[in-house]
Order: sequence, then structure tokens, then C-alpha cells
Amino acid sequence: MNSPISAREVKRHKWWGWGLDDITFRWDNKPAFPGFAKSKIGMDLEKLTPAPEPQLSDYDVPASRLGAEDRAALAGIVGEDNFLDDDEYRVVHSFGRSVIDLFRARTGDFARIVDAVIYPKSDDEVQQILAYIVDHDLVAIPYGGGSSISGSVTPNVDEKRPIITINLGRMREVISIDDTSGLARVEAGVYGPDLEEQLNELGWTMGHFPDSFTYSTLGGWAATRSTGMQSDRYGDIEDIVRGLRVVRPDGIVETKPIPGRDSGSSIHEMILGSEGRLGIITECTVRVHRMAENRVVIAYMFPDWESGIRGMHAIARSEVHPVFTRLSDGPETAFSLSMLKEPKDKKGEITRKVQDTLFAYLRKKGWDTENEMCMSYVCFEGSKSQISREQAAVKKIVKKAGGITLGAGPGAIYDQKKFDTPYLRDFLLGLNVFGDVSDTGTTWARINEMHSKVYDAFYAKLDELGIPGFFFCHMSHSYHQGACLYFTFAVPYENNEVMLEQYTAIKHAVQGEFQKHAGTLSHHHAVGTEHQPWIEEEVGPIGVKMMRDLYETQDPGKNLNPGKIVS
Amino acid sequence: MNSPISAREVKRHKWWGWGLDDITFRWDNKPAFPGFAKSKIGMDLEKLTPAPEPQLSDYDVPASRLGAEDRAALAGIVGEDNFLDDDEYRVVHSFGRSVIDLFRARTGDFARIVDAVIYPKSDDEVQQILAYIVDHDLVAIPYGGGSSISGSVTPNVDEKRPIITINLGRMREVISIDDTSGLARVEAGVYGPDLEEQLNELGWTMGHFPDSFTYSTLGGWAATRSTGMQSDRYGDIEDIVRGLRVVRPDGIVETKPIPGRDSGSSIHEMILGSEGRLGIITECTVRVHRMAENRVVIAYMFPDWESGIRGMHAIARSEVHPVFTRLSDGPETAFSLSMLKEPKDKKGEITRKVQDTLFAYLRKKGWDTENEMCMSYVCFEGSKSQISREQAAVKKIVKKAGGITLGAGPGAIYDQKKFDTPYLRDFLLGLNVFGDVSDTGTTWARINEMHSKVYDAFYAKLDELGIPGFFFCHMSHSYHQGACLYFTFAVPYENNEVMLEQYTAIKHAVQGEFQKHAGTLSHHHAVGTEHQPWIEEEVGPIGVKMMRDLYETQDPGKNLNPGKIVS
Ligand SMILES: Cc1cc2nc3c(=O)[nH]c(=O)nc-3n(C[C@H](O)[C@H](O)[C@H](O)COP(=O)(O)OP(=O)(O)OC[C@H]3O[C@@H](n4cnc5c(N)ncnc54)[C@H](O)[C@@H]3O)c2cc1C
Ligand SMILES: Cc1cc2nc3c(=O)[nH]c(=O)nc-3n(C[C@H](O)[C@H](O)[C@H](O)COP(=O)(O)OP(=O)(O)OC[C@H]3O[C@@H](n4cnc5c(N)ncnc54)[C@H](O)[C@@H]3O)c2cc1C
Repeated sequence: MNSPISAREVKRHKWWGWGLDDITFRWDNKPAFPGFAKSKIGMDLEKLTPAPEPQLSDYDVPASRLGAEDRAALAGIVGEDNFLDDDEYRVVHSFGRSVIDLFRARTGDFARIVDAVIYPKSDDEVQQILAYIVDHDLVAIPYGGGSSISGSVTPNVDEKRPIITINLGRMREVISIDDTSGLARVEAGVYGPDLEEQLNELGWTMGHFPDSFTYSTLGGWAATRSTGMQSDRYGDIEDIVRGLRVVRPDGIVETKPIPGRDSGSSIHEMILGSEGRLGIITECTVRVHRMAENRVVIAYMFPDWESGIRGMHAIARSEVHPVFTRLSDGPETAFSLSMLKEPKDKKGEITRKVQDTLFAYLRKKGWDTENEMCMSYVCFEGSKSQISREQAAVKKIVKKAGGITLGAGPGAIYDQKKFDTPYLRDFLLGLNVFGDVSDTGTTWARINEMHSKVYDAFYAKLDELGIPGFFFCHMSHSYHQGACLYFTFAVPYENNEVMLEQYTAIKHAVQGEFQKHAGTLSHHHAVGTEHQPWIEEEVGPIGVKMMRDLYETQDPGKNLNPGKIVS
Repeated sequence: MNSPISAREVKRHKWWGWGLDDITFRWDNKPAFPGFAKSKIGMDLEKLTPAPEPQLSDYDVPASRLGAEDRAALAGIVGEDNFLDDDEYRVVHSFGRSVIDLFRARTGDFARIVDAVIYPKSDDEVQQILAYIVDHDLVAIPYGGGSSISGSVTPNVDEKRPIITINLGRMREVISIDDTSGLARVEAGVYGPDLEEQLNELGWTMGHFPDSFTYSTLGGWAATRSTGMQSDRYGDIEDIVRGLRVVRPDGIVETKPIPGRDSGSSIHEMILGSEGRLGIITECTVRVHRMAENRVVIAYMFPDWESGIRGMHAIARSEVHPVFTRLSDGPETAFSLSMLKEPKDKKGEITRKVQDTLFAYLRKKGWDTENEMCMSYVCFEGSKSQISREQAAVKKIVKKAGGITLGAGPGAIYDQKKFDTPYLRDFLLGLNVFGDVSDTGTTWARINEMHSKVYDAFYAKLDELGIPGFFFCHMSHSYHQGACLYFTFAVPYENNEVMLEQYTAIKHAVQGEFQKHAGTLSHHHAVGTEHQPWIEEEVGPIGVKMMRDLYETQDPGKNLNPGKIVS
């Protein structure tokens, strides 16, 4: 359906941050934000000058270690145009988008970067590349959008062998759609927006929208067990991807997009989440749906976290099937409100006045609208009658839990700005503030305990370090047995010398707490290297052994993204 | 919640057939059945005398190969009462309930039977047993209900080492229920009815009802990727079992019942379906639901298979969430009608009259009520308002597809007799007729093609063999992308000498066709040994290698149910 593109046309990030478009985070149109930032982490935006945009020319980029013969052989497979080893491309592909990676990139920490980037166009080319890499004992790192937030695309610093990143970006076509079965065969290198555009044109959607949607790919999602914001209805990527086609040095393995497929131990589920260690996913057969006739996002407000969770839990137990349910806690709600833009017109001013009046009323009712009040969004899709029925049911549930329904106006804001947050981290790093997230899955029974204990752990660590910081959380991705808690933190640091140490201390304090309250090491941010400290607690020593044995038997030379998930 | 039971109290089958209760198949109260059997496979029930019930004393049962020292050591772990090696117990545990196994048992083909049966009561005992078995190079076969239909519990005939079957039946307690998360921790040896009883008492249900429900166990379901009749709503066992506890000779591995659990390749999904090759599942944490307020099964009739499938497909695409959807094809519908019991009272007679009038009316409309007409059942659960809304929606869909709604009266019949079919096979074998099933998953796009081609393959094989036989099919277990087709066949055989050969020829003809039309080797009957001929087509040679490598690295001595799934 698409025309082929060459390597340099493949979407990519700037070498030091998120994306390659014009979007940057602005605070000058958000009147409440500077005061908020000042009071929470002592950041005086009026006085601070953001660091200038990093320049690659300020740093030494180590030469490629790839020998001329290997270079010629690999470039020969894909054509010279699709083999890139200039500095910027090698740097871009050497880092994912975790805070550590961004920090390393911005500060020119190029201790070990990839030696070349290759862009195959077909299974056959992928297989030739992999076979060559294994035969000549090089290292392959598969690469989708490079949006990994856990070190999954980052080369090991002590890797001595030449490292080739395999960028799937030229394999981006929706190959075919089976209308009757609601299945689409799609090449794995396709970026989120490109994929949805191709599907939408034919009236379909896959319904997978991770926050990183604009700069991540189908193959990357499958290889990391990604979850999108609409998972309540459309499922995690494990539910969406029904069939896989995976190229290995020794051949191709396929899993069938059919119910009842898993005979014996699931090959499909060994490959999902394998972060490139079992080969390269070149094609996924995915569940697609007719685009919803109607869609509405409704906003709700709860007096506090516990009542909000009561509401979310009751929705999960009801006969309603929302597209998503999301609850911000008190601090996140305060943060969101601080991000509201200045009213631009009469209508905006009226809205603001209505809001002020409402909040004053709620305060009279005894709500703490500054610290405790929790904003929630629920999204409905379907026929008009189904939506209005479900909306009515949720309104009742919310009321019973002690909350109020705000309506579709504030709900619409959610849909508009949902992909903008990734830019905030770059903005903060430019001001010596690290902003990051840690997410976990837990059960409904332990979700409140988890929420409060992780807060305690974060602030105890700040106290110990004697530094300020801000922390907030939302619940998203609801399931029968539990949900995801997604924590965000922002911590200013004195200087680059202390940054990584302080960051690591805080990240570990938060992550370490997850394990204590029946949590997972991450709900949807994969393992890579950065979450590896908790993999043994997650799956146990025998689980680690099972995974390691699997990877070592399939890749005895450790040529395929070695060191990721389990070392 | 339960009192412990000793080995001899554990539920079991008769040594030569299904179950150990009084139920047997009767035809004398089914007036249309003899004529039907006569016309379809030439079986004259009035004239045939069923073979007498097999007597174990007619056969030689080989002595146990277990040495005295090993026997003492193993019995010492569980106590003499819970270690059984008398002939009948050894024979019962040497066969699953596949046609081949039943035939072998009935005909005294005891070439290789298990040498002892051990009944542990705790993880600790299980681990001691496994450690002993591995240390002394014996063979362990885990055993739930022994309802396997693919050879999964049957010892390999050429196994030289002593074989110990580990029966989990004493580990049968619901350990705890987490009300908020809707999760129950349950010991894996519990039988279906026992489990539901324990849950129901507290107002919960798991909602998993395979046809083998009465004589199969939670651990067996997990180890074979079982599917129950209510999977449309409650999920396959893979969806239901959220956490696993597995004992291995070298320790215990646990998977967490939490969303986001699968970091890296899924350990959980390696264990599901592993048929004992990765250790013994001693505990499952399962999704449980409050028992439905209301439940109704509605029957529908379609003029033919294609219109029925149109209806089932439309339901899968609608906003309705039924508990199950099921469509019998023409021959299965005819078979079901032939099984109707003689009316016992006035009410029954009126019902029968109404039916006759309806069928006459349908014939006038041009329906072929004897060969083509397809019966369908859809089950609804929930609030009264939801059920009536969903019922109305389905009625509309059925009408649009060309069918008619019969109502809840005939629907109720489905719920009453759902667990009775297993007894039919024993009855038939007693009359020199083999009756068996083959099931496959396929996509909506190919389901009609699959249906008709499998018919062709079956009857072509009968023609080739020059024997009569009857074939029918239903669709059940509906998913977004497809559904399960479940074929049943009944074929009379001349004598025991030709039975296995003819059975195998027919089974292979049917199974071989699955692969040609994007089908799976089975939808929910596992691999064992009997479906192994198709495992390579199913997962490919690399998939086979991945599974084999996994099992060999985890069990280098091949002590854990060797030879199953992949040899
Ligand atoms: C700001 C931000 C927000 C995010 N929000 C979300 C979110 O909402 N939900 C979520 O799930 N994740 C989120 N992430 C994490 C990240 O986007 C996901 O892990 C995503 O799935 C990665 O996709 P990618 O195409 O960028 O893969 P990459 O980062 O390129 O690669 C990730 C891993 O997968 C492997 N890989 C990539 N493509 C293939 C392939 N074709 N075959 C085999 N292996 C392959 C790589 O080797 C690597 O190990 C976020 C990240 C950031 C920075
Ligand atoms: C008449 C009939 C109808 C059937 N209908 C259905 C149906 O509707 N749906 C369906 O899914 N299946 C059905 N089956 C197949 C069978 O019931 C399933 O495979 C069932 O899951 C087996 O459970 P079990 O407890 O009897 O296991 P068993 O037969 O005892 O064992 C099956 C396999 O699992 C292993 N195993 C058992 N328990 C454990 C454990 N605790 N830990 C590790 N491994 C273990 C065994 O070693 C063996 O490999 C049917 C079978 C028959 C005969």
C-alpha cells in the first residue's frame, strides 16, 4: 500500500531527546505552572535559563569498529543507501529514551556506541544480515522506534565485538486485511501514526496507543509487551498481536493468528517480550476493529484517592466495558490543573469561571481541592445507545463512590494532549531536573497500600538525600484482578556529577517498594538492563534460569541483543 | 476448608472407561435413536448385544518394576496409605481417555503400565518425590483426572526405567479467596465439581466447564490449555489461571497473578500447556466471579450452516457479550434430535407436538429440517435488564442471518445434559463402534471452507476403506478472529484386529485437513503423543526446537513425563 522509503526517510529522534518535530514543552502559556514548580521543587522558571540545545560537534564520537570487509558485506545486502554509519545516526541508535540514556546522550557519554545501522527491506535481507552477524560473531540490536525506556536498545559498554543496529523502519506496510476475521498482517517496523493512518483509511483501527505512540513501532511493542492507553477495551499488545513472524539466523518461525494456537508451551509468548533475543519480528498479524461510530471521554472528580479507586474498581466489576478508565491522584490532579492554558477567548474564560465556582463549592462540601481531589477520565465507544447507557451506569457508580461527573468538556482535553508529555522530560533535563516514571501492576486488594507505601519510599529517600522533589501517580489499565499504578517524579539536581547517583538512588527506592506489595517490576516498560535488578524477584531464580536457558540455546554465540532481560 | 482425604478416596475412573458413577448411555428411552443409528452407520441396536463389561481378572497385569528400596523410599515420603501399586490402580493410571487408550485398556494391552501411583499432600512432599525420582533416574508422570484425550498421561511403551504416576487428587482445597481482586488460590488437584462447590458455597464461580468437567482437575486444565464451554465470557484456562505455583526437583517457581507480570519471555505461558514436562503445578491462582444473578440459554434454528455461521460471526462483532455461542451443523442437529427422550407426561407431549408443527412449517418455507437445519444455543448471564437487552439484540441478529428464535424451553435442555456425552464412547466401543472427536481453531474467514473440506476428507477416507461412518460438527468457543470447530465421528469396525488401523487412518485424514485450512492441530485437546504428528506443522521446526531445548535444559535426565508434546 506504501511506496518503499530509504533509510534517511525513516522517522527518527533527535540524537539527544524525544522526537524530531517542532514540539517542545512551553510554560509561558500556562499561568499557574511557574508558581506550582516553584512551590513543589523550588524551580524558579522566571529566573532559570534552559541549557542551550546540545551540539554533537561539541563531543568526540568514537570511530566505528566495523572492519571494511564486514562493512562491505553488510552494505551489500541492503545497498549502500540503507547502511548508515555517520556519527549522528550511530549516536541516535545507541540510546533509547530512558532518563539515563537521555542524560548520557546529552552529556556526550559515548563510551560505547553502535558501529553501524542497517535498514533491511525484506525477511530475506533480515535473514542474510543475521546469518552474517552470527557467522562472523558480530552483535545485532534490533531497533524499532528507539523509545525504549529501560535500556533495551543500548549497547553494552563492555561489548568488544562490532555492534550492528538493525532498524526495521523501512518495513512499514499493512500487507493485507482479512475483513471477516478482523485481522491485519502488518510489517513490524511501522510507526504508530503510520499504522493507524493506513488502517483508518480502510475504516479500521488497532486501538493501541501507548504514550510513546508517535515514535514507537509495532515490532517494538511486541518485543517489549507494550500497553496502550485503551487497553481496557482493546487489550494489551499480547492480546492484539495474534500471530508473529520472526526471522532468525537459522530460519523463520511463525505463530498462527488462530484461537487454540498454543500447543504445548507457548512459542508465541516466548517471543513476545523477548527484546530481540530470539530473533527479529518482521511481521505481526493483529486484531483490528471497525472504527468506533461514536466516542466520548467523560471527566469525573473524586474527593480523594480511596474513593476514586472505589469507583474504578466498581467499574471493573460492572457490566460496562469502557475503552479506558484513569484516575489521577491528588498531586497529579494538582499538577494537571497547573498545566491548564490561559483562557484565550470568552468561552475559555467562562469555562474557567465555572471551574472556579465548582471548586469553591466542593471546598465548602469539605473537599481538599488542592491536595486530595482526584480527577478521573473514562472513555466510551460504540453505538449511541450503548454509550449513553454505559455513561449513565458509570455516573451512578461514581456518585455512589462519592465522586461527581464533570462531563465531556474537560474530558475532551484528555484526548487532545495525550501524546505531549514525552517532551516534558527533555525540557526538565535542560533545567537540571530529572523527570521519570515507574509503573507497576498490582491487585485491587493491594492498590491503596502500594500507592501510599511507594510515596513513603520516595519521600524517605529524598529526606535521606536532603533534596526536594515532587511525586505523583495515576491508575490506568484496569483488569479483572487489578490495575497499573504509574508514578512520575521530578527531582532537581545540583550538577551532572551527582545526577546519575541521585537518580539511581530514587529509582531504586521506588522500584524496590513494588516488590514488597505484590507488584511487578514494571507494568509495561519492559526489562532491558535498567529493570534487570528486579527480574529475579519477579520470576524467581528458576524463572531466570528458564529464560536464560531459552536464550542461550537459541543464540549460543550471544549475538542477538545480549545482556538484555537476563544477563 | 476441606478435610484431607486418603488416596483411595480420590475420585477416579473405572479402569476401562469414563467415570466411576452409575451413569451409562441408554437408548431405550430415546425412540428415534435406533432408527437413526441404523440408517447412518448400519448399527442395529435391537439386535446387537453389548459386549460384557471388561474384567481385569481376564488379563495379565505385568508386575511393578519398582525396586523394593525405591518403593520404600517413595512410600516413606507420603505414608503407605498414599502409595498404591495394586493392579487396578496401576492400570487406571496408565491410560487417559482417548479412544486408543480406552481400546487398549478394554483389550488388555498392558505392554507397559505404570509401576506405582503416589498421592502427595503438600508441595514439600511433591518436591521430595521429584528430587528422589531425578536422583534415582526414575520417570514421573503427573496426573490430574486422567481425562487426557491425547495420550498425555500414558507411559511410553519402550520406557525401561520405573514409572511413577503422581496423582494430585489429595491436594484439593480452595486455600483462600481475595474478594476485592476476584482471585482464588486453589490447590491444583481439585476436580471440577469439588472446586465449583467450594467456590459456590462462598458465592463465587470460576466459570470453567469443559465437557470433561466431572473427571478432570484444575492442574490438568492448566497443563493442557483447556477450554470450557463458557469460554466466550469466562475465557480459556489461560485467561482464568493468573498465577501458578510449580514444584520442580530443584525448587519452586511461581508466577504472579498480577497484570503486567510477564517481563521478558513469559514463564507463565511456558508452563501452561507443558503437560508435566516442566514440573508439577501444585497451585493456581484463578480469576473468580460472583455467581450470575440470572442465567438463560436460548435456542435458535438456522436453515443451514452458512446462515448459522453468519449469525455467530455477527454476534462476535456485536456489542453483546454472551457466555457461550454454539452452532450444531445439519448432521449434529439431526443426531441431537434423534436423542430426544420419549415424552413422559402431558407437558412433554405438547412440547413434542409444538415441535412437529414448527418443523412442518419450516419445511413449507423450504427448510431441509432433516439434513441442513442447524440448531444453535446462546447463553446469557447478568442483570435482568442486560440479559433482556442482549437477548433482543441476538434475536435481531439471528433473524437477519435467516434464522429463528426458539426460546428458553429447548435452551434449558442444553444445560441439563451437557456432561453426559463422555459416556457415549464407552457404549459405542462396547458395540464395536469407535466414536471420537477432533477439534480445531480457525478464522472466521476460513471456517466454512474448513467445515466442508474436513467433511470431504472424512468421507473420502471412508470410501477408500470401504466402511460406513457418521460425521458431525459444531462451532463453539467464539473469539474476535475465529472460533473452534469440533468434529465428532462414529465408525463401526469389524473386529479388534482392524480397529486401531482404521481409527488411525480416519483420525489422520481429519487432522491432516486442519493444517491445510489455517487450522490448529487441536483447539483444546493438547498434544500428548496422539497429536504429535502435527506439532511441527503447528509451530514449525524452529518452534519444535525451542520447546525441546526448553524441556531438555530444565529436565536434562528426561525424568518428567518424557516424550510428551515433542519427543
Ligand atoms: C515518553 C515515553 C512514553 C512511553 N509510554 C509507553 C506506554 O504508554 N506504553 C508502553 O508500552 N511503553 C511506553 N514507553 C516505552 C516504549 O515506548 C515501549 O517499550 C515501546 O514498545 C518500544 O517500541 P520501539 O518501537 O520504540 O522499540 P525500541 O525501543 O526500538 O526497542 C525496544 C526493544 O525491542 C526490540 N525490538 C524492537 N523492534 C523489534 C523487532 N522488530 N523485532 C525484535 N525485537 C525488536 C529492541 O531490540 C529492544 O530490545 C514509553 C517510552 C517513553 C520514552
Ligand atoms: C469425553 C472428554 C471430553 C473432554 N472435553 C474437554 C473440553 O471440553 N475441554 C478441554 O479442554 N478438554 C477436554 N477434554 C480433554 C481433557 O479433559 C483435558 O485435557 C483436561 O484438561 C485434562 O485434565 P486432567 O485433570 O484430567 O489431566 P490429566 O489427563 O490427568 O493430565 C493431562 C496432562 O497434564 C499433566 N498434568 C495433570 N495435572 C498436572 C499438574 N498438576 N501439574 C503438571 N502437570 C499436570 C499430565 O501429566 C498430562 O500430561 C475432554 C476429554 C474427554 C475424554
